[in-house]
Amino acid sequence: MTLHVENPGRSAVAAVIGLGSMGFGMAQALKRAGLAVVGYDVAPAAVARFIAEGGRGASTLGEAVRDADIVVSVVVNAVQTEAVLFGPEGIASVMKPGAVFISSATMDPAIARDLAQRVEALGFHYLDAPISGGAAKAAKGELTIMASGSARAFAAARPALDAMAAKVYELGDAAGTGAAFKMINQLLAGVHIAAACEAISFAAKQDLNLEKVYEVITASAGNSWMFENRIPHVLAGDYTPLSAIEIFVKDLGIVQDMARAERYPVPLVAAALQMYLAASGAGMGRDDDSSLARLYAQLSGAQLPGTIKA
Amino acid sequence: MTLHVENPGRSAVAAVIGLGSMGFGMAQALKRAGLAVVGYDVAPAAVARFIAEGGRGASTLGEAVRDADIVVSVVVNAVQTEAVLFGPEGIASVMKPGAVFISSATMDPAIARDLAQRVEALGFHYLDAPISGGAAKAAKGELTIMASGSARAFAAARPALDAMAAKVYELGDAAGTGAAFKMINQLLAGVHIAAACEAISFAAKQDLNLEKVYEVITASAGNSWMFENRIPHVLAGDYTPLSAIEIFVKDLGIVQDMARAERYPVPLVAAALQMYLAASGAGMGRDDDSSLARLYAQLSGAQLPGTIKA
Repeated sequence: MTLHVENPGRSAVAAVIGLGSMGFGMAQALKRAGLAVVGYDVAPAAVARFIAEGGRGASTLGEAVRDADIVVSVVVNAVQTEAVLFGPEGIASVMKPGAVFISSATMDPAIARDLAQRVEALGFHYLDAPISGGAAKAAKGELTIMASGSARAFAAARPALDAMAAKVYELGDAAGTGAAFKMINQLLAGVHIAAACEAISFAAKQDLNLEKVYEVITASAGNSWMFENRIPHVLAGDYTPLSAIEIFVKDLGIVQDMARAERYPVPLVAAALQMYLAASGAGMGRDDDSSLARLYAQLSGAQLPGTIKA
Repeated sequence: MTLHVENPGRSAVAAVIGLGSMGFGMAQALKRAGLAVVGYDVAPAAVARFIAEGGRGASTLGEAVRDADIVVSVVVNAVQTEAVLFGPEGIASVMKPGAVFISSATMDPAIARDLAQRVEALGFHYLDAPISGGAAKAAKGELTIMASGSARAFAAARPALDAMAAKVYELGDAAGTGAAFKMINQLLAGVHIAAACEAISFAAKQDLNLEKVYEVITASAGNSWMFENRIPHVLAGDYTPLSAIEIFVKDLGIVQDMARAERYPVPLVAAALQMYLAASGAGMGRDDDSSLARLYAQLSGAQLPGTIKA
């Protein structure tokens, strides 16, 4: 692996901001690829866990990024990303000159463009790089990254991209394009989960054999990546959160806001978002997003495997 | 192939009622498999075309089914199916004793159950056997059939099923179950087409590279069978109907009616159906169902490849 960093004689130093289920795995993948990794999280327990597994931790944002050639931000949303950069302890004033900020949070493309402009004005590089693939792929360094940014941002980020991703889509030289692609994916993913749950609980309402429904649909034109991936959770009655309802409350909310601003109608997104909101309001916000099937069942009297009825 | 028919010494005789894009191909597949096939359609031109390609045609329903061990009904909906059986020229009074009626129209399971009961009361067999796969697979004898019915109905239908389908799901001994599985598939298929079109035109509204969107999404968690299959029509600007908008006006209408009767909420189906209705109302009812992308473009000013703007 060629490291396109300022000082080619040493390993790149990477700071990972946010050691949640995705960030923790990404930090591990970076370390495994030979980068010097410093981890930081607002929760000291997350930092302690990273240290316990052989990582180097930081107790402040500034300490984390002081020596970093590459800063990988794995926080939840645009607000947290802006706080990391420009908040009271924001790193924009203490990053190394020429460092690259890799932003992986899902956000409105307009905000990504704004953040990039402000970061670049201070002499840093910005890579708009939303991620896809889940925690297991993060830990294996097999994420999909939808990236856009300047050639220099890509070059500076390359060692980290190589370490974290199985596939990097290079989507252009302007920040915001990566974010826009991610939002198209989230639009479809969020609607497909809701459709899968609407369908499987409707099948349950009709007392169909749900295992057979799964077998037939996954071999038919009604199939989706999400139906195939999420419905097994419903068949097992296991709503342990691999990805929570609240993720799509957030992401379909972003899509709906973007679409409203652009005067673009999104009736399917709007309908799906209402179901995620209802699931959250009914107490399932932190459960797996396949909990929409439980919501449909509760609203109709359909009997799902292992469903605990409210 | 073993023919489980009344007179094992000769080929089974099959009548195909409805020689549209699906029925014509199914009749050809039956003929190729060695069955004696008689074709009938309300449109004499369709019968003439079948005769021109070496088939045997009938000029009335009664003539078509008089000698048939197997009647394959490939009409559009439940109303036409009932008319074929019990209308003024209905075949229920003239079918051969012990013949099997294979019903392939997509319909409300309750209607399938009712038709089966009436047909069986007259001494015939009824196989509830909705089809999936499109005209090309019909012609090749490679359909998917979601079938339910008595063991005797399956046995009598077997030579035709073997000839027409690559895969026959045997879903139980009661008519209605095949129809119910098909409706679950149509629910998902109809919502996924609408979601695909909502997404691709939203990408166009943001001036994203649509070929790249297709590449990224088909490799991501946002993918669906329908996105992968239909979006190439949009990218080519080709709305030649492989499956028309009106099909989903019909099928999502059936789902919505079933769900209303069962007090089951279907907000995604409802949202998608409104878009199909709007596309039909805007003059695209007979165009390809991917025309929903054009509708979204017209409603938002998004520019699609080759779109002729209203």
